[in-house]
Amino acid sequence: MSEDKVLLDHGSGGKVSHAMFSDLILPLFNNPELAKQDDGAVMDLDLKGGRLAFSTDSYVVDPIFFPGGNIGDLAVNGTVNDVSMCGAVPLCISVGLIIEEGLAQKDLKLILESMAGAAKKAGVKIVTGDTKVVPRGKADKIFINTSGIGVIPAGKDVGGSGARPGDCIIVSGFIADHGITILSTREGLKFDSDIRTDSAPLNKMVQSLIHSDCDIHVLRDPTRGGLGTTLNEIAAQSGAGILIKESALPIRGAVQGICELLGFDPLYIANEGKLIAFVPEQDADKALEIIKQDEFGHDAKIIGRVTDQDPGKVFLETGIGGMRMVDMLTGEQLPRIC
Amino acid sequence: MSEDKVLLDHGSGGKVSHAMFSDLILPLFNNPELAKQDDGAVMDLDLKGGRLAFSTDSYVVDPIFFPGGNIGDLAVNGTVNDVSMCGAVPLCISVGLIIEEGLAQKDLKLILESMAGAAKKAGVKIVTGDTKVVPRGKADKIFINTSGIGVIPAGKDVGGSGARPGDCIIVSGFIADHGITILSTREGLKFDSDIRTDSAPLNKMVQSLIHSDCDIHVLRDPTRGGLGTTLNEIAAQSGAGILIKESALPIRGAVQGICELLGFDPLYIANEGKLIAFVPEQDADKALEIIKQDEFGHDAKIIGRVTDQDPGKVFLETGIGGMRMVDMLTGEQLPRIC
Repeated sequence: MSEDKVLLDHGSGGKVSHAMFSDLILPLFNNPELAKQDDGAVMDLDLKGGRLAFSTDSYVVDPIFFPGGNIGDLAVNGTVNDVSMCGAVPLCISVGLIIEEGLAQKDLKLILESMAGAAKKAGVKIVTGDTKVVPRGKADKIFINTSGIGVIPAGKDVGGSGARPGDCIIVSGFIADHGITILSTREGLKFDSDIRTDSAPLNKMVQSLIHSDCDIHVLRDPTRGGLGTTLNEIAAQSGAGILIKESALPIRGAVQGICELLGFDPLYIANEGKLIAFVPEQDADKALEIIKQDEFGHDAKIIGRVTDQDPGKVFLETGIGGMRMVDMLTGEQLPRIC
Repeated sequence: MSEDKVLLDHGSGGKVSHAMFSDLILPLFNNPELAKQDDGAVMDLDLKGGRLAFSTDSYVVDPIFFPGGNIGDLAVNGTVNDVSMCGAVPLCISVGLIIEEGLAQKDLKLILESMAGAAKKAGVKIVTGDTKVVPRGKADKIFINTSGIGVIPAGKDVGGSGARPGDCIIVSGFIADHGITILSTREGLKFDSDIRTDSAPLNKMVQSLIHSDCDIHVLRDPTRGGLGTTLNEIAAQSGAGILIKESALPIRGAVQGICELLGFDPLYIANEGKLIAFVPEQDADKALEIIKQDEFGHDAKIIGRVTDQDPGKVFLETGIGGMRMVDMLTGEQLPRIC
């Protein structure tokens, strides 16, 4: 029986750790940098006058398996997207595993396979990593950190401080799918719907935008804290006001229904495969079209504008024409959503 | 009372998370890249024809405070060293915090202060990060992932596969201090000694070696698994035999005594501020002198040689002239040592 479980010894750095690396991890993530088994990966990199982007995220999602994905592909896509939102082409990522003693080896294998698949789909290499195992009860199944490196092409500059009055705000598809999927799965809620995580790599969408002649001011993926919190971050960073229209927000009927039932606001529910782009009005239709052409952007919409009023604040025009302020998320409504 | 504890809300990505970042984290780690608060850090980097090194490690050490350091400076020094062992000058690191709900805020502050201090001492910037909080009982106080980037100067090439017969093996000081410190602290053992962790940044030592005219074949820090496991890794990677002399191993009397008392072999006990260097015989004395000049290398010694016998194996010549094979660590003798 015990061979089917992850043991403390798998994290010792000794013989059993090395066997797990050689027999399980290396064949899945196979690339020359990782195969060298040095303390870090060494890469030839031609920046071509561009800049480096570097990002990190830890994933502690509960449950670790959920409709549409698991903690493994979530962790790869998440860092691919964070690097992409800097306007960069993500190239390689690191993986730090913290495993609770007793995790089923088949679950670990499934997760690692999903990571390898997600990396392949996104076109990034997993070049370096680390595995720790902690005694039973000292972690919850598995936590994964991914860090990523990418290159921002010369002359390109996107960031949260670039929003300018008049910019149109595009969201690349339906919001709140990920958070509602996790919540429903965790709580064992049986809804008559097939909601699944939207976890997806957005790097190709971003590259199409960056290499178009559209002037992209801001890119951001509205993950933890949701669209409402992310818009507040950008409003604060840019010193600009933001006005979005409730009627324009793409929300699936089933997600909207569950939110109403449980008292959640979809504006604060996490997404894992969506981006928001701020572009000047004259480029908005073109940027929208580029996003819609992408595999993960078919349902993109323009949801609002940057204004020169109320700098740092976000307002929502409600369906019946009223206005309400959208603050940052306060309180933790959904712990361990990613 | 609750204000003195880390709450789930500190990891929500919302208002309280942002306040913690602005009030606590940013002032400590202060640098322009982090201050931008984008999804990743963006850096101008001139590789000058060199290569990039990239490494990651998660720290789950128990206890989180111990004589000579805590999980924070350990995590910074650890990744500074892993990047350095690639022959690189470490430049920046990321920090991923996974905090158990209820951690004392003053403990978090102490840990972050130690990270800032360690980064300053090593001359690296903490440019990007992430904070997650999990419910009480789902992690143990705090886990920290650090990932790091550095640049390997053009024309320099060190790695675990570079050991060649005739190479001398230098260790930069006393072994097993870190592991014995953690073990003693965790188990509440009261020894009449002042053993403390050896956690330290080795990047300046490595830079002095790399920029000397010594031909450095291998650099590695013998952390988890200890000197014995690390030598086995290098023997396997290089396809070379290794012979070390027990009488040459620098071990403090107190550490040796505790190891004998508890039945541990110091060859398998973790170090966090030591490196081993493989250099051709003609450069060995010079390399040793360079290491001894460094703040953390005063007690360096030549401990053995690479041979052309028994490729992939490590042998120890014992104090009484016998020979024993040193295998990789088998079994986990000290979980959560780093």
